[in-house]
Amino acid sequence: MSAQKEFDGIEAVMEESLKGRNYDEVRRILYGRAYPELELSQESKDLAVNGNFELKAYSISAQAEQLRAPRRVRITAIQNSIVLATTAPVCQQRKALHEKISVMIEVAALADANIVCLQEAWTMPFAFCTRERLPWTEFAESAEGGPTTQFLSQLAAKYGIVIISPILERDDEKDGVIWNTAVVISHTGKVIGKSRKNHIPRVGDFNESSYYMESTLGHPVFETAFGKIGINICYGRHHPQNWMMYALNGAEIIFNPSATVGELSEPLWGIEARNAAIANHCFTVAINRVGTEYFPNEFTSGDGRPGNTALLYFCRFITIPFFRGLSRTRDGVLIAEVDLNLCRQTKDTWGFRMTQRLDLYAKSLEKAARPDYRPDIRREK
Amino acid sequence: MSAQKEFDGIEAVMEESLKGRNYDEVRRILYGRAYPELELSQESKDLAVNGNFELKAYSISAQAEQLRAPRRVRITAIQNSIVLATTAPVCQQRKALHEKISVMIEVAALADANIVCLQEAWTMPFAFCTRERLPWTEFAESAEGGPTTQFLSQLAAKYGIVIISPILERDDEKDGVIWNTAVVISHTGKVIGKSRKNHIPRVGDFNESSYYMESTLGHPVFETAFGKIGINICYGRHHPQNWMMYALNGAEIIFNPSATVGELSEPLWGIEARNAAIANHCFTVAINRVGTEYFPNEFTSGDGRPGNTALLYFCRFITIPFFRGLSRTRDGVLIAEVDLNLCRQTKDTWGFRMTQRLDLYAKSLEKAARPDYRPDIRREK
Repeated sequence: MSAQKEFDGIEAVMEESLKGRNYDEVRRILYGRAYPELELSQESKDLAVNGNFELKAYSISAQAEQLRAPRRVRITAIQNSIVLATTAPVCQQRKALHEKISVMIEVAALADANIVCLQEAWTMPFAFCTRERLPWTEFAESAEGGPTTQFLSQLAAKYGIVIISPILERDDEKDGVIWNTAVVISHTGKVIGKSRKNHIPRVGDFNESSYYMESTLGHPVFETAFGKIGINICYGRHHPQNWMMYALNGAEIIFNPSATVGELSEPLWGIEARNAAIANHCFTVAINRVGTEYFPNEFTSGDGRPGNTALLYFCRFITIPFFRGLSRTRDGVLIAEVDLNLCRQTKDTWGFRMTQRLDLYAKSLEKAARPDYRPDIRREK
Repeated sequence: MSAQKEFDGIEAVMEESLKGRNYDEVRRILYGRAYPELELSQESKDLAVNGNFELKAYSISAQAEQLRAPRRVRITAIQNSIVLATTAPVCQQRKALHEKISVMIEVAALADANIVCLQEAWTMPFAFCTRERLPWTEFAESAEGGPTTQFLSQLAAKYGIVIISPILERDDEKDGVIWNTAVVISHTGKVIGKSRKNHIPRVGDFNESSYYMESTLGHPVFETAFGKIGINICYGRHHPQNWMMYALNGAEIIFNPSATVGELSEPLWGIEARNAAIANHCFTVAINRVGTEYFPNEFTSGDGRPGNTALLYFCRFITIPFFRGLSRTRDGVLIAEVDLNLCRQTKDTWGFRMTQRLDLYAKSLEKAARPDYRPDIRREK
């Protein structure tokens, strides 16, 4: 471990080191137009300070329309580290996370959040690299009636907010199989439905298909009181066609709850969700863990280095085509007040949907998926 | 016009203003690993200085393999402003551009370039916003035997380089229709084939379907002496499925010759080609014009502002998943020596191809393209 303080993020450095026009131009090229900060209640800010987590809020406006009123929604992303050691009893680890998150959700509610999304498999350490079954699979629980859904349903109803809860799911009502699932809880506290991870990494230690397989639920979109949402879990962000199908099903906001380590994927992180927002004229929200997770037994990495016991996460951001986010290292609540009318305005302005040629690609992919497909390669005659 | 010097680009500011670890971390998060500069011949550098254009070259390595030798290829992108006023005779405008480009290609050749790609419709001002037919359509010429292809074929054979020449094509041999086309000229000087623009913008002034329509040639990939290449012209970069089909046809390098104005799309520019390189484990090369083009007659913009007569371009970059580029404002030659083995290494490491689920998306897109498609939307019961 280095004694050096971890690097906090690009924005902090930019704000510190760049001045005047240089700052404005770099910000514009990296993040598009400037988004003003939102003023939040003192109570929410005090509670965040007490809880030792960051609280940031920005406003993303759209043009005024004549026939539609603005549809302003406060989207909230929560990033956090685990609380107890990965060797603590399962029940205690989960309880400690429930307690941490209940404070963060309270702060979000005090800041007038409408939709809150937590990170992937938020009730547990992300232990899938270890390949060990127990105790990790004991964190799996029913999407519809497990202790975490019960716990969050109460908070959702109490605060009148929609909560997206990505958990390790044990499909108890059907065949007891494990899935990587996001539960969508309405602002009334009821479960609207669930979405499962469509693409499973097979990268180094993270061959998560040791634990669960690809979703067979397709790309459901959930109509909530605060807009239509889809959930593209973790590694699905690398697949543009996955984002696209959520958008084609009408998603105005696509969440990407993730758990990914810095060394591996950090330079990709600022690109993929933004590209999805551009290509699909919707808001995207990428959420990753922060902190370091230590495991009792060594595990190997795909890079041939022996004896890992720790996973180092990074995070910051995102919402929206161009947007900044939280510290790379601290727990945090990120709020963006967006006007959902911006989705259709962008769709009409850029015309990507209209020019998408879905029929061409449906045919092309159908051919390309066949075992006997011959790529269209031209050579000099 | 502002008297203020135009902003040169993010990298220049970063290098000037950030020090030590701050610089390293910002660079890493934005651009991934560091790419060393290549040493070039003094002759090429002198000629670039004389020609008043930038010359930059970087090296992008791959891991050594046991069974495959490195396949090092020098990919070259050329960005340039037009030479004469848009009111000059067509022949003279084209001739002046031929002359400018012949010097830039000579420099590229002296710097050991293997593949050179020019910008979209490089023989002309990008006048499609005007909606006027003449004289602009007079710039259209035969892909196989027009004056520009003849001119570049000689250079390709002389220097032993592959040249990608994006032009306005008049399909004289068939039906005289105009297309937006990239001609691929082998290092022997022969035309290997051509590719056409798959997605046509209908954005503000740039409804280019006043001049040409979407390609019916699909996504051909050209096997050259220096690797397999595809050409995704301009607005096609907004469509992830377009990049994907070139990659599925085996492209190791996908070029994106473009003409796009700064105010509109600059914050998208750093995202889209990079995302395509990530998602498709190939090299991508985005090329835009630089400078300002003035037109004799006013044209309107989609933003309701009256009386445009000028289009202001910006450029810089790219090659490769993470890479930096040229000045936003100056003519330039950008060279990246890449090891094409990196494509398969990345494919194997990240597994995106393996986890792509093409069959799922072929079926999903087929359904989504139907007029009677009902999006999969779930509501609270």
